[in-house]
Amino acid sequence: MGNGKLYLIPNFVYKGNKNDISINQLSIIYSITEFIVESEKVTRMFLKSIEHPVKQDNFMFHLYNEHNLNIVDFNEIFKNVKLGENIGLISDAGIPCVADPGSKVVEYAHKNNIKIVPMGGSSSIFLALMASGMNGQQFTFNGYLPLDTSKRLKKLKSMEKEVESSGTTQIFMETPYRNNQLLEMLVKTLNSETVLFIAAGIHSPNQIFERKKIKFWKNFKIDLNKIPTIFIIGN
Amino acid sequence: MGNGKLYLIPNFVYKGNKNDISINQLSIIYSITEFIVESEKVTRMFLKSIEHPVKQDNFMFHLYNEHNLNIVDFNEIFKNVKLGENIGLISDAGIPCVADPGSKVVEYAHKNNIKIVPMGGSSSIFLALMASGMNGQQFTFNGYLPLDTSKRLKKLKSMEKEVESSGTTQIFMETPYRNNQLLEMLVKTLNSETVLFIAAGIHSPNQIFERKKIKFWKNFKIDLNKIPTIFIIGN
Repeated sequence: MGNGKLYLIPNFVYKGNKNDISINQLSIIYSITEFIVESEKVTRMFLKSIEHPVKQDNFMFHLYNEHNLNIVDFNEIFKNVKLGENIGLISDAGIPCVADPGSKVVEYAHKNNIKIVPMGGSSSIFLALMASGMNGQQFTFNGYLPLDTSKRLKKLKSMEKEVESSGTTQIFMETPYRNNQLLEMLVKTLNSETVLFIAAGIHSPNQIFERKKIKFWKNFKIDLNKIPTIFIIGN
Repeated sequence: MGNGKLYLIPNFVYKGNKNDISINQLSIIYSITEFIVESEKVTRMFLKSIEHPVKQDNFMFHLYNEHNLNIVDFNEIFKNVKLGENIGLISDAGIPCVADPGSKVVEYAHKNNIKIVPMGGSSSIFLALMASGMNGQQFTFNGYLPLDTSKRLKKLKSMEKEVESSGTTQIFMETPYRNNQLLEMLVKTLNSETVLFIAAGIHSPNQIFERKKIKFWKNFKIDLNKIPTIFIIGN
């Protein structure tokens, strides 16, 4: 018997139900009962929201997140896959392996000849890029900015320089409770003609899309505290 | 009466039917009859494949692609939107505004207070990134590489340097009939320890996912001629 497959399963960016997933994707997810997850609670909620027909007691979860990155035993996690069972990788929001540590799971699959099946879905990063009206032909996702203030300032300046020299759109994030501080720093640090797009609470009832030059952001008040937000600068 | 909305509608990466789209997305697309498109033929095929209930004669299409970028009159295109009608932006494959000129449409919408609704879906670029097992926390999409050989070599070297110095995954493309030549150049130019992932014909019956160090690519034959392909280097 050959190996099972590794399915890369998108979660919702905000909330959703089974009518937000295609019938073909649903039927695949309904056939899987073992998952590699960022958090068990969030995954159980997802499986419940899409009305997965298997009882919650019968799921098997393997935790894989920023806290146990280096101690996880992939051989153990993939034991059933090597016996022919399929497994799903699912993150707490959006598509797995983008802005989360999932790529190490996929790397293991490559090295062990396990077939990888990436499934299409929503990602706050790409929804934000689409909605920004910024150059989508060259762009960089920078992840989280450095915490240290001087390193952070340097990073902001280098991203802005990249926009000016090559036109490459720059996408980045912050821990949600520090969003307002980051916005304040952006307004103080960037050139007044630089265009900043903010996508906050994507797909939620309070979704915010605002695209303005820095000189207009100076007088535009917005509260991003604790709201998952994507920041984009470009031209 | 207020403005209508601009819906950013994903197309399939390969082929599909209405069972590949969620019920909620389908009901939105079914309510739209006016579209901004890269090509009319491909869009008609998409609308047919998802069984759009409106007769083909009753659709209105506005062409917007690399050939008429600078002569399109957005005021004309958005005339009905300003009267309250919704419009859809749809590209020939994958999500709009990524690796296509759609962002200018969205920029116009921002400047004219037209609400933008990005819809989740598949993109060959992100499916490839997910399937690569490369770092998905920092990555750059470089689009098409320069045609000129010396500029192209320089770009390849600078991407490789970026992978080595910052760990930022580098994604790029080529016109499909030149894929084999690009692969040859990659094998000759990059360091033997650099990891190259190739995703070709994503979601098609002949889909290829191969992830190897350059030293192994030297002895690995693969024909990418005319197959839409995403190239990724990283570690």
